[in-house]
This record gives sequence, C-alpha cells and structure tokens, in this order.
Amino acid sequence: MEPTTELADQAHLSERILEALQTEEATQLLREIRPPDLAEALSTIAPQDAAKILQHISLELAVSVIDEHAFANRSLVLGLLDLDLATALVDAMSPDERADLFSQLTSELAEVLRPRLSKEAAQNLSSLLRYHPESAGGIMTTEFVSIRDHVTVGDAIESIRAVANQKETIYYTYITESATGILLGIVSLRELLANHPLELVKDIMMTEPKTVYADTDQEEVARLLSRYDLLAIPVINARRQVVGIVTVDDVLDVLIEEQGEDLQKLGGMDAIENSYMQTSFFDLLKKRGGWLAILLFGEMLTATAMSHFEHDLSRAIVLSLFLPLIISSGGNSGSQATTLIIRALSVGEMALSDWWKVVRREFATGLALGLLLAVMGFVRVVLWHLAGFQDYGPFYYLIGATVGLSLIGVVLLGTMAGSMLPFALKRLKLDPASASAPLVATLVDVSGVVIYFMIASVVLRGSLL
Amino acid sequence: MEPTTELADQAHLSERILEALQTEEATQLLREIRPPDLAEALSTIAPQDAAKILQHISLELAVSVIDEHAFANRSLVLGLLDLDLATALVDAMSPDERADLFSQLTSELAEVLRPRLSKEAAQNLSSLLRYHPESAGGIMTTEFVSIRDHVTVGDAIESIRAVANQKETIYYTYITESATGILLGIVSLRELLANHPLELVKDIMMTEPKTVYADTDQEEVARLLSRYDLLAIPVINARRQVVGIVTVDDVLDVLIEEQGEDLQKLGGMDAIENSYMQTSFFDLLKKRGGWLAILLFGEMLTATAMSHFEHDLSRAIVLSLFLPLIISSGGNSGSQATTLIIRALSVGEMALSDWWKVVRREFATGLALGLLLAVMGFVRVVLWHLAGFQDYGPFYYLIGATVGLSLIGVVLLGTMAGSMLPFALKRLKLDPASASAPLVATLVDVSGVVIYFMIASVVLRGSLL
Repeated sequence: MEPTTELADQAHLSERILEALQTEEATQLLREIRPPDLAEALSTIAPQDAAKILQHISLELAVSVIDEHAFANRSLVLGLLDLDLATALVDAMSPDERADLFSQLTSELAEVLRPRLSKEAAQNLSSLLRYHPESAGGIMTTEFVSIRDHVTVGDAIESIRAVANQKETIYYTYITESATGILLGIVSLRELLANHPLELVKDIMMTEPKTVYADTDQEEVARLLSRYDLLAIPVINARRQVVGIVTVDDVLDVLIEEQGEDLQKLGGMDAIENSYMQTSFFDLLKKRGGWLAILLFGEMLTATAMSHFEHDLSRAIVLSLFLPLIISSGGNSGSQATTLIIRALSVGEMALSDWWKVVRREFATGLALGLLLAVMGFVRVVLWHLAGFQDYGPFYYLIGATVGLSLIGVVLLGTMAGSMLPFALKRLKLDPASASAPLVATLVDVSGVVIYFMIASVVLRGSLL
Repeated sequence: MEPTTELADQAHLSERILEALQTEEATQLLREIRPPDLAEALSTIAPQDAAKILQHISLELAVSVIDEHAFANRSLVLGLLDLDLATALVDAMSPDERADLFSQLTSELAEVLRPRLSKEAAQNLSSLLRYHPESAGGIMTTEFVSIRDHVTVGDAIESIRAVANQKETIYYTYITESATGILLGIVSLRELLANHPLELVKDIMMTEPKTVYADTDQEEVARLLSRYDLLAIPVINARRQVVGIVTVDDVLDVLIEEQGEDLQKLGGMDAIENSYMQTSFFDLLKKRGGWLAILLFGEMLTATAMSHFEHDLSRAIVLSLFLPLIISSGGNSGSQATTLIIRALSVGEMALSDWWKVVRREFATGLALGLLLAVMGFVRVVLWHLAGFQDYGPFYYLIGATVGLSLIGVVLLGTMAGSMLPFALKRLKLDPASASAPLVATLVDVSGVVIYFMIASVVLRGSLL
C-alpha cells in the first residue's frame, strides 16, 4: 500500500459510493473507508445524496461520520434524515461535536431534536452551548477520566481500562478532591504505567497543572498545548472544578481554521467558513465585495486629495508618472509591517505594552528602507533621463529628488501605520488581524498623495511649479 | 493558583533567576519553573547569561530545557558552555531536537561535539541529518515502541511499561513482521487496555495505518494527523520499515511556525525565523528590503507605461485624479483572490488540476465585483460633479464611465492574476504562498495603468482627448 499522502479525490469517492449503493457492492467499499474520508466526501456532494448514503450505512459508521468536524454541511444533511435516525446520531455523538452541530442547526430542527435527546446528552448540550464557540468552553468535551485522590495506581489503571472505549482521551486522568471535586492534579497514563500498582496516585501526580477557564480564547488554548506539549488541558470553573477538557486533535483543527481566517483577513476580506469550493458564489461575493467597497470608499479620498493639487499637476504633468510607484511603495512597506506585528501579537510574542518598543524599531527600519528605495528611485529618474530613454526636462534631478524624498516619506509612513494599526485594533478589543494589507495600503495611499505633492511643491518651487 | 493563560513576562523571569543565582535562593524558583518557560526565558536574555544559568541548574533540568524547540538561540548558548556539559546535554537530548540543534550549530562546534557523542546518539544524528528539516524525516523521532507480531496484549502492555520513561510516545505501538521489520499495523494503548491480556496484538491491531515517507512535506504530515485525529504517524521507507514517528506536539510546532511564514510571505517579505523581537535589525532589513526593492523595480514599469500616455494626460489632467483609486482596486481584489487560492492549495482543498474550475469561478466573481465597484465609481464622479463638490467639466459623465469601465477591467484582471499566480508558482514547484499581496498588486498596477488609459482614449475620444 502506498503512503496515503493524497487528500484529493473526494468527489470521485462519493460518486463511487452512490454507484456502489445502487449495485449492492457497498459493503466492501464501506468496510475500507475511514470516517474522516467519508465525511469529507459527503461534504462535497449534494446534501440529498449525502443523506441517502448516511441512511444506508451502519449506525456505527454513520455516528463516526457525523462526529467529524470535517463534515462541513452536516447540519444541512441532518435535516434531510428521518427523525429517528437523526436523533440516534445526535445522541451518540461526542459532546463537543454535538454542541458544535447544534449551534449550526436551524432553530426549527434544533427545537424538534432537543426534547428527543437522552437526558445526559441534553444536559451536556445545554451546558456546552452556553460557551462562545471560539472559547475553550466551545471546543471542550465533557468526556474525561477523573478519579478521587485516595486511589492507587493499580486501581486507576483498572478504572481507565473500564472506560477506555467511551472517553475521548484516556491518556490523562484528573485527580479531584473527594468532597469538593476541586482539581488537585493530573497523572498521565504513561506515569501510571511507569509506577508500582500499589503507589497512591496523589503521590505521583503532577500538581499545579496548566489549566484554562471556559472563556479562554481557543487560540490561547492552542498555544498552551503546543508550548507544554500536552495532549489535553483541563477547563476549570472559578472554584477549580473541572468542567471539561480540550484535546489536542480539536486544537489542531482550531489552528488550521484560524490560520485560514487570519490569512483571509490579511488579504482584505471576511473569513469564509467552508472551503473555497464549498462556499457559494454569493457568499464569496458578499465576503469580498463588502471590503472592496469599503476600500474603494477609502481610495475615493485619494481623488479628493489630488484635486487640491490639480493646478500643480497641470504645470508638471511629469509628476503623475511616478504617483503609482510612490503610493504602492508605501502600501508594500505597510503590508510587511502589519503582517509582522499581527503575527507577533497573535502568538503572544509581544503584548500591547510593547507598542513603544515597536514604534522605535519600525521608525528606524522604515527610515532605512525608505533610504534604500529613495536611492533606487532617484537613480531611476536621473539615469533614464541621462540615457535618453525619457525626457524629464531641465529639472530632471529635482524630479528625481522629489521622488526619492517622497519614497522616504511614504515608506516611513507605511511602516508606522502598518505596525501601529494592529496595536490600535487590539487596544479597541478588535482582532488585530483585521488590519489587512489592503486596508493599510489604502490608508497610506491617501497620505502618500499628500506627502508626494507637498514635497514636490517645496522641491520644485521656482523651477517647475 | 490562577489559570496560566499568560505567556509574557519571560524577560523578568530571567532577571529573577539571575538574581536568585547570586543570592543562593535558586533552588525554590527552579523547582517551580517548567522547562518550556525557562527555555523561552533563556531565549530572551544574553547568551552569556543563559549559559551561566544552564551551568548552574541540575543536569536533568538543563537537558529538558535544551530539548525545547522554543529555546530559539540554544545553538549559540551551547557554544558558550564548557565542552563536557555541552556533550552531556546533547547526548541526553531527544533525537529529533538533537538533529534540529545540530543543523543550526557552527560547523566548528559540530565537528568538536560529534566525535564526543555516544555511539547511539551519533548514529541517530547522522541518519536524521540526512533529511530536509521541513520534511517528515526532519521532524521525526526515532524513539518509538515497536513489537513483533506474535506478542499478546498483556506482553505488549508489559513491554510498554518497561520503556514508559524513555520513549517519546508510548500511546501507539507499531507491530512489525519478525523476519523483515515491515510495518504490519498499529495498536493504541487505549485498545491494548480495552482488550483481554491473552489476546494476540495482531488480532486487534489496525492494519493499513496511515503512513508517510521521510521526504513527505511537514505540512502534509500535519494535515494527516489533524484529519485522522492521530497522536503520531509512522514514517516508513520504501520497504515499509518504520524509520521513525512524527508526534502531534511537533506537528503543533510546525503548524504555528508555518502559519507565521505563510503570513509573512503573503505580506510581501521573506519569512523570519525567530520572533520579531529576537530578529536582529539588519536581518529584518534584509528580509524586507529585498522584496521592497524588487517590488519597486516592478512599479517602475508603471512610470514607463504612463509615459506613453503623457500626451493624453496633459489634455485631460482630470484623469490622473482617479488613477490611485483604480489601480488600488485592482490590487485589493487581487490580494483577496491570491489569499483564497494560497489557502485552498496549502490545506489540500484543491489540486493543480482544479485551475480551470477556479478560472471560471474567479472570472464570474471578478466580473460581479467589478460591476459593483463600477457603479460606485460612476456614482461618485457624477454625484460630486452635480453636487458641485468638484468640477469635472461638461463631459463629467464620460469621465464617470471611464472610471467605471476601468474598475471592471482592473478588478477582473486583479482576481484573475491573483488566483492564477499561486497555481503558476505551484506548477513551477515554487511555494504558492510567495504570491504575496504586494506582488499581485504590483503586477496589476502596471496593467491597470494601461487598461485605464486605453479605456479613456476610447471613451473620451472626440470629447476630452
């Protein structure tokens, strides 16, 4: 068998399954397929077809499939199943995925399904639905192993053995105080196995484990798991009782999801929830058109700004030739700076309080980069004139100087605006990643126009202007 | 104890440790600190100080700290330790981190250290160093549990118990054929515990496990672990023998690292290796200045393009007012498209062969977005004129039409260029993420100038031009 490094071919898979269902050859194919693959395959076909397949396969497989985060349109498909099957599936799902699914259901379907759930599932659901979907509470599961503090290693292993098939992770066991349920420590299955069965768990457990609250942001949770190489982290309430755990597989999903969202925001659009191909044309249009329109409004200010310099322009048409070059350089340097700072803020490399350090650093960097581009710009103008490619008139060196000085100005402005906008957004409790490259570019464009013509009017006064 | 959701304060921590070392109060502080925290703290202080601290703490803690991926400048610090300590640390490190460290050492230090290593460590090292650092081989560890196929569940648990403290993960056991060492299947510790001790492992193991080759890209490895909710994945050679495993904690590090790299490339710069604050001023300048200079060269073409329309411009200065607005809209729509496609390609949502589907979709989207902006642009020009904010002359509606039509053109061009550039780069075996927003914007700027003036010369012929 080849290493399975290929993730494509989902659509074909669905077609093959549908065909197989008709030709009664389904059994073999469905024995081989893994739930995540089937889940992704079902996401790419019509919900009606997906429902047909779900109704045809074993309940066990159907549960595994509906439990997959990758089954992007499962809420839609669920509505097409008959109600008994839908209830059975939702009842058997893992608590975290069930809550996730419910938050996407139409309110009609949710109201029909909820009273039909088992008591345990219903309770789990209402406690999980209280939390923000992007918080620790929103991605945690309530299935974890906890034991009291007087248990021996041997007993602990036995009780893990008994629930090995039910709990989402059995690799950590949480030790709680008998009377209060307060978290005392954590022991890994590794440590349990490495110790003598008659030892007390509380003597080998790790006290003061890393914990999060239910409202901790999911990115923060991801960072903690990554930093401390954990397979799960307990979510506690104000009394230090464990209300759930977040496992590393959910954190991987979070990271991959947030990565896409951050990229899309940086690219100047609202983040899309599904994959590109699964997002409808109109949804895509909405997520992109909104920002494009806002940015166009911003850019309209450049026209207003320029109209103030129309007279100068008419006397020195040559100035307009270098306008795109100058404002784009500002946008480019701003785009670099904003990316660097968004990243540093999002992984916790720097805090809000570091803004002044960043100002000083970016000022120096912006100045150096501006000087570099200024030299290039000046040389370009002068060289082209002297080489005879272009005739910039008798004051070509002044035009070169105007271009060079303006480049210093806009690059400096770009780095400063680009690096400070994420701080400003974070200060306002907004997502720093909204400081998109196009947004920074637009801000810088308007001021870039003003800088350019101001410098021109000083440098060229008495010659061209 | 408060939930530990705060990752800052690293610098202060180091200062406190250094002070504590002097005042002989180190013991308590060092008993409480976790290796990842100490590692990050040491990264933020002078290497000399970090070396001093490492020399002062227990060998066990020092090993844990040097083993941390987050200890960014450990290769530097290692060179400042005395050679015996350095050897002891490197010898005791985990194989994957040791290889990572060696790839960053100066060749002098590597040559001194290598012959001093234990035979096992030296062998591990030379086999791991053969692989590309961003491949499965480059991030895998050679510490895993493997058993022969005739072993019982009880025996398997016993042999795991025996090595519980040494192997990087004991939660998966790899079952290999006795004669050939070929991978037959995988069993999780969970399944071992859930089954009767006298059962044969080969009867409960999962056959056909997901595997990767040593040269599989690390992002692909991350995707597989995330998709199949794995804690580790075996790396096999052409004969299906297991050469190592990649564990989920390394994959988390990979994802967080790649996320930053992708963002920075999209922002139009070379990815930096360390954190913003840890990157030297000149390094930062190099990573940013190179791309800014290249982009400026690109933008110089706009000046060349515009010089061909200087005559038109001199007759209709008003055209220059809308130039920034038009080219920026092209850049913005291109930035959106390139982000969407880079993301979809990088998570494997689409393959190279999907390019034609994307062309059709982006053409339709670009047209719709262009129409939206065209209406806004036309209304802006006409409204401002009629409201008396601005005098665009008797042919104001033709100017409005020029702006509107140009917006359709550049937005369409932006979406097409932005969506196709990542495909083109991937086709050329380059990183699609190099299709940065600024690069697309620059490409579109040049053609945007041409589109604008071409449309103007048609629409305004006989009136303004």
